[in-house]
Amino acid sequence: MFEFAWLLLCYCMTNLDTFELARSPRPSKWGSLWPLPQRVATFDVSFKLAAASFQMLDGNGSSAGPSCSLLQDAYRRYDKYIFGGVKPERPRARDRRTDFPVLMGLQVLITDPEPECDQYPSVTSDESFQISLDLFLGLETFSQLVYEDDFGAKLVNWTQISDYPRFAHRGLLLDTSRHFLPVKVILANLETMAMNKFNVFHWHIVDDQSFPYMSRTFPDLSQKGAYHPYTHVYTPSDVKTIIEFARLRGIRVIPEFDTPGHTQSWGKGQAGLLTPCFAGSRPSGSFGPVNPILNSTYDFMRRLFREVAAVFPDDYVHLGGDEVDFTCWKSNPDIRTFMEQQGFGKNYSKLESLYIQRLLDIVSSTEKGSIIWQEVFDNGVKLERDTVVHVWMGGADSGEEMRNVTAAGFSAILSAPWYLDYISYAQDWLKYYKVEPLSFNGTAAQKKLVIGGEACLWGEYVDATNLTPRLWPRASAVAERLWSAQNVTDVDDAYDRLSSHRCRMLERGIPAEPLFSSFCPREFEGI
Amino acid sequence: MFEFAWLLLCYCMTNLDTFELARSPRPSKWGSLWPLPQRVATFDVSFKLAAASFQMLDGNGSSAGPSCSLLQDAYRRYDKYIFGGVKPERPRARDRRTDFPVLMGLQVLITDPEPECDQYPSVTSDESFQISLDLFLGLETFSQLVYEDDFGAKLVNWTQISDYPRFAHRGLLLDTSRHFLPVKVILANLETMAMNKFNVFHWHIVDDQSFPYMSRTFPDLSQKGAYHPYTHVYTPSDVKTIIEFARLRGIRVIPEFDTPGHTQSWGKGQAGLLTPCFAGSRPSGSFGPVNPILNSTYDFMRRLFREVAAVFPDDYVHLGGDEVDFTCWKSNPDIRTFMEQQGFGKNYSKLESLYIQRLLDIVSSTEKGSIIWQEVFDNGVKLERDTVVHVWMGGADSGEEMRNVTAAGFSAILSAPWYLDYISYAQDWLKYYKVEPLSFNGTAAQKKLVIGGEACLWGEYVDATNLTPRLWPRASAVAERLWSAQNVTDVDDAYDRLSSHRCRMLERGIPAEPLFSSFCPREFEGI
Repeated sequence: MFEFAWLLLCYCMTNLDTFELARSPRPSKWGSLWPLPQRVATFDVSFKLAAASFQMLDGNGSSAGPSCSLLQDAYRRYDKYIFGGVKPERPRARDRRTDFPVLMGLQVLITDPEPECDQYPSVTSDESFQISLDLFLGLETFSQLVYEDDFGAKLVNWTQISDYPRFAHRGLLLDTSRHFLPVKVILANLETMAMNKFNVFHWHIVDDQSFPYMSRTFPDLSQKGAYHPYTHVYTPSDVKTIIEFARLRGIRVIPEFDTPGHTQSWGKGQAGLLTPCFAGSRPSGSFGPVNPILNSTYDFMRRLFREVAAVFPDDYVHLGGDEVDFTCWKSNPDIRTFMEQQGFGKNYSKLESLYIQRLLDIVSSTEKGSIIWQEVFDNGVKLERDTVVHVWMGGADSGEEMRNVTAAGFSAILSAPWYLDYISYAQDWLKYYKVEPLSFNGTAAQKKLVIGGEACLWGEYVDATNLTPRLWPRASAVAERLWSAQNVTDVDDAYDRLSSHRCRMLERGIPAEPLFSSFCPREFEGI
Repeated sequence: MFEFAWLLLCYCMTNLDTFELARSPRPSKWGSLWPLPQRVATFDVSFKLAAASFQMLDGNGSSAGPSCSLLQDAYRRYDKYIFGGVKPERPRARDRRTDFPVLMGLQVLITDPEPECDQYPSVTSDESFQISLDLFLGLETFSQLVYEDDFGAKLVNWTQISDYPRFAHRGLLLDTSRHFLPVKVILANLETMAMNKFNVFHWHIVDDQSFPYMSRTFPDLSQKGAYHPYTHVYTPSDVKTIIEFARLRGIRVIPEFDTPGHTQSWGKGQAGLLTPCFAGSRPSGSFGPVNPILNSTYDFMRRLFREVAAVFPDDYVHLGGDEVDFTCWKSNPDIRTFMEQQGFGKNYSKLESLYIQRLLDIVSSTEKGSIIWQEVFDNGVKLERDTVVHVWMGGADSGEEMRNVTAAGFSAILSAPWYLDYISYAQDWLKYYKVEPLSFNGTAAQKKLVIGGEACLWGEYVDATNLTPRLWPRASAVAERLWSAQNVTDVDDAYDRLSSHRCRMLERGIPAEPLFSSFCPREFEGI
């Protein structure tokens, strides 16, 4: 019996399909590129980069000049990534004594007539670029082409790249309510998102547990609803910092203010917002979802979302709408009376729909688009054409929902197979990598409605102590799935490139965890 | 079918028995003590501690005087833990203007006639202590009694504690072969072990993947077998630093040199040590376990273990002996001939036994005791009376092995239920906490042979990036099980104390991960 138990354990583990890559990483023919570009041709001719004299410059005729702070900021960042911040003061003579041709610099030619230097990225931003030896875009990709010879010299091979993302929406959800995440941690992960070509930070900013968003209109929400009124909140300045840091990296910030459920913390700073639950004929003292039958609720939402629309420049707001528990509504006599008046019978989904429809109207009036979790669609709420449905239920088996959402003509974002908070032993990145977002049954028109996906790292068991290593490089698997071509599915090659990519993240100061037994030339030095 | 899949997922998760503590932590009547002492009495009388004037001093008649560097080092460390390193230069007048009585200092009275000031801790070290208001031992426990009032003042309540560990061997295994761990990371975790009253660092220092131990006798072992010959090795000075750092915290360092399996990296620097595997009648080019039929093997082991015995002061060495794969031995014609000569038939366990018995003799001659993994016992190797058997197989169902080992009269260390590298979603510390090491069927004499246990964090998926948050506070659950009385099993109270204990680890700079949605007054500031 004892031996049996042991075998069972082994079975459970191998059943996770996680031991297929129990080997040391090998060099990939694609080097350490991650995510893999759409088209790459590499030639066996190398160029040397001289740290002291190498320059990134705006190309002749570029639509983005030296006043484009976004580009100047990127030059500085990638100079540091490529040369490690160590730079001799001026060109030294020996730089020219080399058996390789020297690459003197990068010319960055922006052809887009509206290069978005001072604008925010949007779902329609042009993210395509080409790299050849005298024409550069995609600084991250260029920095991934640089390698070191045995003498520490930086080299690039002659390479031609033409690249663009498969999906326009490549997001990462972080949750700052279950645990507060210091601004520093959020910035470090935005930086890492850029290294992985993620372009949407879905900020699940508030929830039942705490309300860290400091609202100018309703300061009591964070004063009373945050874990602490000033050490555990995001001030307007914090929010601005995060949005600007993201903008400089081509990342959109979409805030989520999830209602009518997941709002316990809201109730602490806004009396009368939540539904009083009843035990028999008396209030029990506890509260349920937002109270959908009061005009004051909609007045509050109108003022709150007007502020949110002004603070967050993105064209979209995420309205949540998931996991609404009807128990409390059912217990409340005023709500029951309202249900009768409306002729809703016992169908509380209709009450939820009434609330969401009014909320969608409020958000529309701020000129923002709405994203909602799938239940809102499932419950038959009447949605605007441009509402985006976010599919999260069913794990790997979410194809039917994807089919239904797109068949109804709505754009969809897929997250169901990418709940990275569900950790397990060994190489679960493979599971995320093998997802094909368009594998559901549907027409070509339906598939076009899938605008992308998001990796979700919910915060129940995650805070500043463990977030970064738990996220990377597991989220990198999702990043490549959303960026690279559909036929990029060679897990052996992915293992090799991802192993190098994780060592590069280490060198850039990000504690990305290992895929398997291995080492990096320069290990992480923190604890 | 889609809904079914979702329900299945929920079932899998709740089946892990992990959602029983989905609530915010509450104050425990035991404060934040972890592990819980054997006897505690707390009274409702508080004393104030003045940071500038508070002193830890050797008590009158203490057997350890000011020359006991071990104790002086501990005073300094706990002063910093208690007062946070911020200390006014001299006593200020306002320290005396207080409505609480002031605790001017600690008197530490060591009664043991041999206080081990300059010695190494051993399995027989007296770890018992008492705390009352004028008699102190157990600085860690004292520091856990200190709390802050709303004005930041440090207070302790009048408390009487009499404490001693339930088990003498309370270990943690770290693996520096699958991934190299920088010395800094090992030291930080020794520090955290002391906070949790662990007293054995089981250093699984080498394995198949790499040989980072720099041997003076056989320098090629790390020169050729480490991931890198000088960035990824432990020099003699590193090893000394680790042993001394551990000694100052009452922690024994037991190195494991696992043979005859798990030795691929050994073969790179020691030609002829491993068994050449054969494909048919020819060597295949690959190698198997240590070659047990050559005299040169035993000469090598004698010299290596003589060095190990000199470098590591502990009375015990761990010899491994687990997971020996016979395939290669079976393929080798010389080994087959040897088997025939010895009359072993096809029983390769007999060959393994021959090897291990000779190795045990070698280690005995260095005056060290041996610890071996359970297979050595299971395979019927003749063992010295004082050999310790380390039980690792069967997960939670290792009771039969514990019964067999102790019935045969051997001391046992339990690790089977405490493989912390097997991560899973949610609060798996509960699973570790609920283990009762003496729950197997056996006599009182057998139970006495269980000298303790070890939490194991194998290194396949762990390096400096994720080790510390993955280990703490999960290992803290094991620490309390091994220290506190058998009847300390209230998981609700443990949840509350452990939540506080993890916040304390954070304040001391250790990124211990959260148990569940919550916050700490001062969050971790790193990334």
